[in-house]
Amino acid sequence: MRTKIKAILLNEQTDYEVTIKGWVRSFRNNQFIALNDGSTINNLQVVIDFENTGEAIIKSITTGAAIQVDGMVIASQGKGQRVEVKASQLTILGDCNAEEFPLQLKNKPSLEYLREIAHLRFRTNTFSAIFRLRHSLAFAIHKFFNEKGFVYLHTPIVTASDAEGAGEMFKVTTLPFENTPRNEDGSVDFKEDFFGRATNLTVSGQLEAELGAMALGEVYTFGPTFRAENSNTARHLAEFWMIEPEVAFNDLKDNMDLAEAFIQYVIRYALDNNRDDLEFLAQRLIEEEKSKPQAERSEMGLIEKLEFVLNNQFERITYTEAIEILLQSKPYKKKQFQYELQWGTDLQSEHERYLVEKHFKKPVIVTDYPKDIKSFYMRQNDDRKTVAAMDILAPGIGEIVGGSQREERLDMLTKRMEEMHIPKEEMYWYIDSRKFGTAPHAGFGLGFERLVLFVTGMGNIRDVIPFPRTPKNAEF
Amino acid sequence: MRTKIKAILLNEQTDYEVTIKGWVRSFRNNQFIALNDGSTINNLQVVIDFENTGEAIIKSITTGAAIQVDGMVIASQGKGQRVEVKASQLTILGDCNAEEFPLQLKNKPSLEYLREIAHLRFRTNTFSAIFRLRHSLAFAIHKFFNEKGFVYLHTPIVTASDAEGAGEMFKVTTLPFENTPRNEDGSVDFKEDFFGRATNLTVSGQLEAELGAMALGEVYTFGPTFRAENSNTARHLAEFWMIEPEVAFNDLKDNMDLAEAFIQYVIRYALDNNRDDLEFLAQRLIEEEKSKPQAERSEMGLIEKLEFVLNNQFERITYTEAIEILLQSKPYKKKQFQYELQWGTDLQSEHERYLVEKHFKKPVIVTDYPKDIKSFYMRQNDDRKTVAAMDILAPGIGEIVGGSQREERLDMLTKRMEEMHIPKEEMYWYIDSRKFGTAPHAGFGLGFERLVLFVTGMGNIRDVIPFPRTPKNAEF
Repeated sequence: MRTKIKAILLNEQTDYEVTIKGWVRSFRNNQFIALNDGSTINNLQVVIDFENTGEAIIKSITTGAAIQVDGMVIASQGKGQRVEVKASQLTILGDCNAEEFPLQLKNKPSLEYLREIAHLRFRTNTFSAIFRLRHSLAFAIHKFFNEKGFVYLHTPIVTASDAEGAGEMFKVTTLPFENTPRNEDGSVDFKEDFFGRATNLTVSGQLEAELGAMALGEVYTFGPTFRAENSNTARHLAEFWMIEPEVAFNDLKDNMDLAEAFIQYVIRYALDNNRDDLEFLAQRLIEEEKSKPQAERSEMGLIEKLEFVLNNQFERITYTEAIEILLQSKPYKKKQFQYELQWGTDLQSEHERYLVEKHFKKPVIVTDYPKDIKSFYMRQNDDRKTVAAMDILAPGIGEIVGGSQREERLDMLTKRMEEMHIPKEEMYWYIDSRKFGTAPHAGFGLGFERLVLFVTGMGNIRDVIPFPRTPKNAEF
Repeated sequence: MRTKIKAILLNEQTDYEVTIKGWVRSFRNNQFIALNDGSTINNLQVVIDFENTGEAIIKSITTGAAIQVDGMVIASQGKGQRVEVKASQLTILGDCNAEEFPLQLKNKPSLEYLREIAHLRFRTNTFSAIFRLRHSLAFAIHKFFNEKGFVYLHTPIVTASDAEGAGEMFKVTTLPFENTPRNEDGSVDFKEDFFGRATNLTVSGQLEAELGAMALGEVYTFGPTFRAENSNTARHLAEFWMIEPEVAFNDLKDNMDLAEAFIQYVIRYALDNNRDDLEFLAQRLIEEEKSKPQAERSEMGLIEKLEFVLNNQFERITYTEAIEILLQSKPYKKKQFQYELQWGTDLQSEHERYLVEKHFKKPVIVTDYPKDIKSFYMRQNDDRKTVAAMDILAPGIGEIVGGSQREERLDMLTKRMEEMHIPKEEMYWYIDSRKFGTAPHAGFGLGFERLVLFVTGMGNIRDVIPFPRTPKNAEF
């Protein structure tokens, strides 16, 4: 039976036999192996008996090699670790040619280079920490909603619905590009396609989640969503995971309360369960920022930032108040904002960052946006100009949550659909939810990778998903 | 503050004020409302004061209407419920035209009809029970793996890899069917496509999960997978969710142990947490089977069947033993099997059902299949004829798990890839995992909807996913 390194490091006892398996992180003085098995960021020191270990085996103990060690856990005489394993037998499971292996300690690889070898980057401290954290955040999300009685709903990935206007979509098809079936008028005959109609990859599960909420009460999605946008930035992916809770009988304030409690819960879970990983990533961030000018460095350390979010309520302001603050701001007066700023236009990243990072210095929830810059399904306020929308803006990340109270009134919804040229016939099922037992309800979407970015302190969204999909890149 | 019906029904106390919101399931004698809010399959009885409730409101209390009730929880004088709510105020949130609403109690809708109105079927007892169970099973899956220290890995949905041969794939593209960019030789120029190459929807996250396991130790995926197969059966979907654990250092026996423990854990979780829903579905199954001839009815009730799976180890036999049993079987001797049966051919559904339902009468794990009917990545046994594969067959469902120990030996793997014409250059990243610190490892895939079928006792896979995707159907 294999014992995991995490269990050995947590065990107070010493002087017991173990079998451990893992990968060599380093080997020094022909005697000390730093062994890692993925269960923790911490390595276990294995001490080998140089005299009684064959030369071929010694030669094969290289960085990256997979080995099995049978031995005794003893109190360590050396500095830096409480316990170590004295090997009685060492078996090479899989060797690792030091000349070919791209992950040698000597030359620390850049994040850019590691993206090119994403199939191997799990083997670094940084990426093992990131992916353990990603796991913990995902689990915390399910735990949070489960404890509250939500139902996890798998909304469809392939969809014929293209009415949301949330962005460019990917076609899903089995039709050939050669001899494509055609109608008499020359257009593509999608009746011949697999689903008998044109289909796309979903941009959001919200509309379907609303159908679930109108019966199950509280539901959430957690699945992949897609944007075929040619955005080559550090904050955009073509394929990303989104969490979308939807709650019957909630209004905008309930929605904000839920989102804030949710974010705080999952951050607390990570702090409680992944302290080692977070401490490592906090140190990594400090190292990384050493090369930056003082002004561009983070004001708080990573863990300090997360604790700050836990201990401070999010600021809540209306869009109208946000515009007023921005129009009074130094960068506006000094004409430092690049984009137009007036009531009615959407806030740009530079405006959001000013509000969050300079003015309030904490997460901000902006509510009640002008209806013309928001989606048809958002509930119109009594002023007839704004809708009950909310965006949560996080320091260093920007928009992390977008949500709203939904328009539950049949007449208001269909009127808005007409105004915005949303095809009502295709969306009969959505309209039915307002026709039969409609009720106030609200929900939001949280981009999972942006949350992972925030919690890990990483700077590029490509580094927090195992195999990023971006324009011109679908490697692995 | 709204109180959930589940909380009221679980609360031992009476004589306290509540506000409840939900949907009317029935209204009788102008006095008794059966109210459901999705938190439980059980309705709460609301008693209204007919004399003091306006006529317009009484008229609007129809099946499907959303209402708010403020009132007092009291001990019920009637039969059938311990408590009821005496309404002091009743508000119609959303009415529901009885003439138009398709879910009237009078004419019990068929499952087929409910599939056509999948946007409303959440509002029935059957489907609310199914989707609460689906939630619980999904949560139990995450809980099981989290407790064991696995890392949840989101493997890519859009993939350029088409080398697994696991079935027909859907193309993902942004290229137009009109004026498609072409190379000089007339072929489609996929360099112009979004990802700069031809891409598909994933059929499995296994190969990428293996990359994670070779560093993080134990990982699992839980995500959507796709098959563009024209299979219009009660057991196939074009879009379904799959769970794929992958564990470093595990061999085939460890893999079987993990799969068995896993299935038993999630079934136990459902029994412990969704008893009401299971009892309802057990009763539904009995009703449904009344119309079947005795011989076709289930031998055990639903809950009995689930408890049987918990209390009995799965049978473990080799493929070779399975063939021997089948060749000795009555249906074989009586020539009742439709498909060929000899060592070397794959087991068909009829064979699997005989083994599971007639011979062993419990779940069966069949191992060590002929290598030529299995995938290139499965580990070759010393006999050179079979591979360390395993399929788990469940009563009434058939194959629910497929897995194997993986071929970790670089030379054996590349030889097999050549024999099976798997493009090695494209799969360099997979081969690298054997080149650098390879180790024995194993994993399996479990089709989530088949598990939900098994646990809910439903007969058609379209009834256990919110919005099924099948040939010629991508509605909602």
